[in-house]
Amino acid sequence: MDLFSQQLLSEFFACLYEKELEFELVPVDMGSGEHKKEPYLSLNPFGQVPAFEHGDQKLFESRAITQYIAHEFANKGTKLDCPGQPIAPLLVWKEVEAHQFDPPASKLNWELVFKPMFGTSTDTAAVEENEAKLAKVLDVYGGSFVSIQVLGM
Amino acid sequence: MDLFSQQLLSEFFACLYEKELEFELVPVDMGSGEHKKEPYLSLNPFGQVPAFEHGDQKLFESRAITQYIAHEFANKGTKLDCPGQPIAPLLVWKEVEAHQFDPPASKLNWELVFKPMFGTSTDTAAVEENEAKLAKVLDVYGGSFVSIQVLGM
Repeated sequence: MDLFSQQLLSEFFACLYEKELEFELVPVDMGSGEHKKEPYLSLNPFGQVPAFEHGDQKLFESRAITQYIAHEFANKGTKLDCPGQPIAPLLVWKEVEAHQFDPPASKLNWELVFKPMFGTSTDTAAVEENEAKLAKVLDVYGGSFVSIQVLGM
Repeated sequence: MDLFSQQLLSEFFACLYEKELEFELVPVDMGSGEHKKEPYLSLNPFGQVPAFEHGDQKLFESRAITQYIAHEFANKGTKLDCPGQPIAPLLVWKEVEAHQFDPPASKLNWELVFKPMFGTSTDTAAVEENEAKLAKVLDVYGGSFVSIQVLGM
């Protein structure tokens, strides 16, 4: 299997490592716009990294790739799905990560890590706004709702 | 089962109808901020509609609710999952809806439908920006990539 990316993103590394899978990292040179041209567009028509190839299955969108690996290699390495457990908390908290946690966390990453790396200025108003949004999400993660619904405590 | 919402959202109506399920719609008065107070917060700690209750299972996040219904009532009404089919296209195109289609479509809905309804002005620059983003997504939806990967044509 091949993972097409500019760098080894931590969630894929964790997923592939836990499943004890061998893979090849295929570098994509985003600096020269390789991700916006063929042949990369035949892997992901939106021209974004990463993409993933396993036999004749081609995938993109990071959460789809990790879910595919968890499903396709269910009986190898660490169990990443929860067979026999109620499915509702898994479905809900996957969506919370995607729609509540990730938007402010990614925005802060962009403003505080990538912008300084590229020599552009951080938007301090955007940082404040997204720190407040992220704080609310972390309050929920640390609160009794999660203890009861996710951890069963 | 109870669906807590201000109105009957089309994706839930479609999902519940296809599965031939009986349910009760529990109105949430967002005008008076009912969704930001208990007891609603015990259904969704983020204080957003909709939420869903089925026996002792409580769910929120719209995509989690429809996936739960499709999974929990797999053998009732219309088949909404695809057993025996390759799982990769399903995983990829669910994420595309959530992360490529929905953000510009929701923003346009807000600017062109809800803002005029609330008597506030539409941001024409935001409309133009999101129309361009949505057009790119619709180009991919209508292109050969989707025909081959999703429809198998």
